[in-house]
Amino acid sequence: MKLHVVPNITELVSSSLLHQNILRFHRQPHRLAKCQYDIIGSDKIPEYQESVIDVDLRKKVRHEVIGKDTQACLTLWEFQTLVEACNKSKGFQDAILEFKLPEGFELVVEPWPYGGLDVGAENQRYFQGLCFAQDMNNKNADSNFYAYPLPIIPVMDAHKKEIVRIDRLATGGKGDSMTGQTHSERVLDHCQSAEYVPEMIAGGTRKDVKPINITQTEGPSFKVTDESLVEWQKWSFRVSFNPREGAVLHDVRYDGRSVLYRMSISEMTVPYGDARAPFHRKQAFDFGDGGAGNCANNLSLGCDCLGVIKYFNGVIVGSDGQPKVHPNVICLHEQDNGIGWKLVVQFIITLANYEYVFAYKLDTAGGITLEVRATGIVSVVNIYPGKTSDHGNVVSSGVLAQNHQHIFAARVDPAIDGHNNTVIYEESHGVPHNKKTNPNGNFYEIRKTTVNESSGLDANPIDHRVFKIVNPSKKNSHSGNPIGYKFSPLPTQKLLAAPGTLQAQRALFANHHVWVTKYQDDELYAAGRFTLQSQLEQGGVHDMAARKDNVEDEDLVLWNVFGLTHNPRVEDWPVMPVEIYQVQFKPSDFFERNPAIDFPSTKNQASVLVQNDCCSEKLYTS
Amino acid sequence: MKLHVVPNITELVSSSLLHQNILRFHRQPHRLAKCQYDIIGSDKIPEYQESVIDVDLRKKVRHEVIGKDTQACLTLWEFQTLVEACNKSKGFQDAILEFKLPEGFELVVEPWPYGGLDVGAENQRYFQGLCFAQDMNNKNADSNFYAYPLPIIPVMDAHKKEIVRIDRLATGGKGDSMTGQTHSERVLDHCQSAEYVPEMIAGGTRKDVKPINITQTEGPSFKVTDESLVEWQKWSFRVSFNPREGAVLHDVRYDGRSVLYRMSISEMTVPYGDARAPFHRKQAFDFGDGGAGNCANNLSLGCDCLGVIKYFNGVIVGSDGQPKVHPNVICLHEQDNGIGWKLVVQFIITLANYEYVFAYKLDTAGGITLEVRATGIVSVVNIYPGKTSDHGNVVSSGVLAQNHQHIFAARVDPAIDGHNNTVIYEESHGVPHNKKTNPNGNFYEIRKTTVNESSGLDANPIDHRVFKIVNPSKKNSHSGNPIGYKFSPLPTQKLLAAPGTLQAQRALFANHHVWVTKYQDDELYAAGRFTLQSQLEQGGVHDMAARKDNVEDEDLVLWNVFGLTHNPRVEDWPVMPVEIYQVQFKPSDFFERNPAIDFPSTKNQASVLVQNDCCSEKLYTS
Repeated sequence: MKLHVVPNITELVSSSLLHQNILRFHRQPHRLAKCQYDIIGSDKIPEYQESVIDVDLRKKVRHEVIGKDTQACLTLWEFQTLVEACNKSKGFQDAILEFKLPEGFELVVEPWPYGGLDVGAENQRYFQGLCFAQDMNNKNADSNFYAYPLPIIPVMDAHKKEIVRIDRLATGGKGDSMTGQTHSERVLDHCQSAEYVPEMIAGGTRKDVKPINITQTEGPSFKVTDESLVEWQKWSFRVSFNPREGAVLHDVRYDGRSVLYRMSISEMTVPYGDARAPFHRKQAFDFGDGGAGNCANNLSLGCDCLGVIKYFNGVIVGSDGQPKVHPNVICLHEQDNGIGWKLVVQFIITLANYEYVFAYKLDTAGGITLEVRATGIVSVVNIYPGKTSDHGNVVSSGVLAQNHQHIFAARVDPAIDGHNNTVIYEESHGVPHNKKTNPNGNFYEIRKTTVNESSGLDANPIDHRVFKIVNPSKKNSHSGNPIGYKFSPLPTQKLLAAPGTLQAQRALFANHHVWVTKYQDDELYAAGRFTLQSQLEQGGVHDMAARKDNVEDEDLVLWNVFGLTHNPRVEDWPVMPVEIYQVQFKPSDFFERNPAIDFPSTKNQASVLVQNDCCSEKLYTS
Repeated sequence: MKLHVVPNITELVSSSLLHQNILRFHRQPHRLAKCQYDIIGSDKIPEYQESVIDVDLRKKVRHEVIGKDTQACLTLWEFQTLVEACNKSKGFQDAILEFKLPEGFELVVEPWPYGGLDVGAENQRYFQGLCFAQDMNNKNADSNFYAYPLPIIPVMDAHKKEIVRIDRLATGGKGDSMTGQTHSERVLDHCQSAEYVPEMIAGGTRKDVKPINITQTEGPSFKVTDESLVEWQKWSFRVSFNPREGAVLHDVRYDGRSVLYRMSISEMTVPYGDARAPFHRKQAFDFGDGGAGNCANNLSLGCDCLGVIKYFNGVIVGSDGQPKVHPNVICLHEQDNGIGWKLVVQFIITLANYEYVFAYKLDTAGGITLEVRATGIVSVVNIYPGKTSDHGNVVSSGVLAQNHQHIFAARVDPAIDGHNNTVIYEESHGVPHNKKTNPNGNFYEIRKTTVNESSGLDANPIDHRVFKIVNPSKKNSHSGNPIGYKFSPLPTQKLLAAPGTLQAQRALFANHHVWVTKYQDDELYAAGRFTLQSQLEQGGVHDMAARKDNVEDEDLVLWNVFGLTHNPRVEDWPVMPVEIYQVQFKPSDFFERNPAIDFPSTKNQASVLVQNDCCSEKLYTS
């Protein structure tokens, strides 16, 4: 029996003791590394294990054999294995030949996780390949292959490294059979080129765009010391990076006062709504399945952020088990905010067709905004000419963009002037006209509800429901209210998959907009530690909440779930204009006044009027 | 009988004929001016009239005697009359003396509209004054007088130009009587200085802010010709300004294709929720009562917008009835949008304590965003030491910031490739698990509903309700769907005042998020033409919708209502951090692909890395 070790340098494994004490005593905890590995043999199914090593003591401090009903997250080199298995599979290659690809077109296999595995197949580790053809007649590797979808999906058994099944995809439309309706010849004849590299498109690029530059001649107002300690406009925080979550903020303070212990994007799921098998297997968990940090872009100057930029590197694990520097995965820069300024910690991930830009934005008024921007290319399948579909929108000839959802979960571990916090929600309600409390009809009342046990809660914008994370032991000297931060969850649509079915069971976290749970070590992931091929969310927020822990005046964690039901429009093709989601955490009686009030009222000196030759300066009246 | 004429140069008065023909024939319509005036006499109540003059023909083409149950909008010089009346009123001056203002403090009277007038008082034209004291010991006219609220409101009869009543304000808190509970001596002793000019605050300004400059060395990408025609990145539109609505966009086109005929902010109401009389009279209609354009700021370089700026002037009417240039009331500039760019048409209004920044933002992906930012100073009243209140939040010693709402109405007159349009709304709904249409549980369906008669409709984010304005006669060649623009109304709280009471009756428009009405001439105002002292919304969207006009394949108007229930937090004092609301109109199968796809992928050349002395460049791992 061989030991195949894949050490994974994740963030510090925290313990309750550390969690309580790090901030208080500023004592350096021992450095811990988590090793994730399979124990494999020629004739058995690999056994996935995890060990935690105290690097200072050079000692294993925890060891765990993971149950057989879960799958370790995918490694990116398994994707390469899928491509190789496709190349080796005669059945698959024969199927591709049937399509009679046009001259100069080449096959592209895009590896995907397999989605939720069917009951009874638990020990199998599968991957699926979405297939496209790329027009290589112009020899440009950036030519958009998504414009030529092939109606076939090869499925690989990752243990055998073999293609074990080839699914034929339906290519029909409204009124056509949901099964078996496929085409296997000249399926690309009706497809059209749809380049996304602007310089490759027919007609060329527009010529009248002049540069907008951000210049900071005196340098930035932020400072980075001790490798990860960022200080800016009374804010201070640590930034870290790990292969699963990407950029994480720690120990976020304003003017020395603690606001957050930790803030991260915890999970996202992208379930597809096309009812025709095997499309229900298109459901990625982009953080749990393969690691958002692993997919982080290496940012480069002048592409992603403007102005004076600080990049941070990360570390991931290579296929040889060695740590590998992942350069420029986080970008730090300042932005003018129209009124006030903000500091942006940003990372971008590319997951097959999609791109997500995640940002933590701290502003001069004490607010923290979590922003997700979705762009990239919508996931498409082949549809026959003249057809339309109930499962998506035809965005280009032969190309059906399937309806889907993106549902995100952020994890916020608050520390509002200390770890013992309480979540309350407030609503504003009209009051019936009455002589005693509402003699003139204009009164409305604020109703407050304390969340006393761990639970899932929902947005309610119609009653202006606002959640507040407060420190019940500390009162604002003016208002008498407990000091806190507030946020209004985005009232976005929840998961649409039918309750009890595979897609729904895997993403129980998507059933509420807000979860409040009691802090426990290692509970970082909204959909649980193991999402790859899961059949049920295990150890996710649903389970954490089900403990019905006391969360009043406690070390609690707040989870925020929001998302986008994405029924594609033609304009989403070939590259989707960015969709932006922002969740704003704002001080609410945390400070004794607007903390930005001491911001100098300097006039910007670099702005200029347009030149007369460009624009009339004459008075106009209309 | 004298004729006292106050001509008001508003925008072109459109007629159905013009509305239909201007775009088609590009024929210059005659120039029309609306004159608004009172006919006054020594012993009678002034009679308000309006005339429309054809300036080219020098002829009156319309004349209207306005009914006695409505009041003409206020003129800003009536505010000055209130201040003078206060100065002349012995009763009021005696009342102020009772307060025994501290040494060096001076009285400030802030004029407000009177809110809705009581039944039976219809012929009265009243104004009220909110009273504060300003600390002039440092001789600075910018010292924040809102920090010292006086519990008194003088009421002026505008016809008599006399103070006719002095209301004493409650200064109690929870448990205290709602009426009569007031204090009249040394009411400012417990109040504290709260300067908002940063240079005046104790402790001074922060010193570590370095400039962020926007430089456009090659100039802007936009072009302004013919005084008001703006062209930018395939967009073209006219911008105009009028005293009531401020900046308005007209004839908005992309690549020559019509998108909107006209877009404006139509109305906003700010009702206060303090149940104690006379606070129910704090309900402004900031567009209808006095005109947002009249209150527009004169913008100045380096203060409001960064980069290369084009300012537009407006024209308003002075107290002598003469037209008066209102310089730099609109700002036009480009902004980097993170991904893509946008063009911003912005104006800022100051209404007593509040400031609103309104912007129309056009982006390179064919989107139009309407943005409202609210900032300024929350409206406050005096509260006795140690008290808290159900009617607001104590934001500083002695200062109660009252709960209130801001409810905005935007008017969108669409012309999606022509005037005949239809509004539909789409929702996404889960489908029960069933063998026929949802065998795997992941399917969801899109349900479409056509709005066929004029009506009020609501946001429904939980079902992902999206409104589409389509041209039913034109289909997208890929999807087969009618071409259109979509938007998701913000699901903000509606008006909280008890139905049937004065505040609610005056703002029936605030009962729905979306109204669809049939276009009719002169229907520009969501709460009706006359809001000042109204007792009931008349001729507003509620009445327009009640006609039950056919709006399918018709020249329709879409109204969007959204707002903020603002229960102040301490951080809103002394200046409220900006609250931002955005409504986004996006092409939905209007184009044949993403219209931004031909944007060149140029790298920005001006961005730089931080210097080593500022930030560690070392690899960090955590």
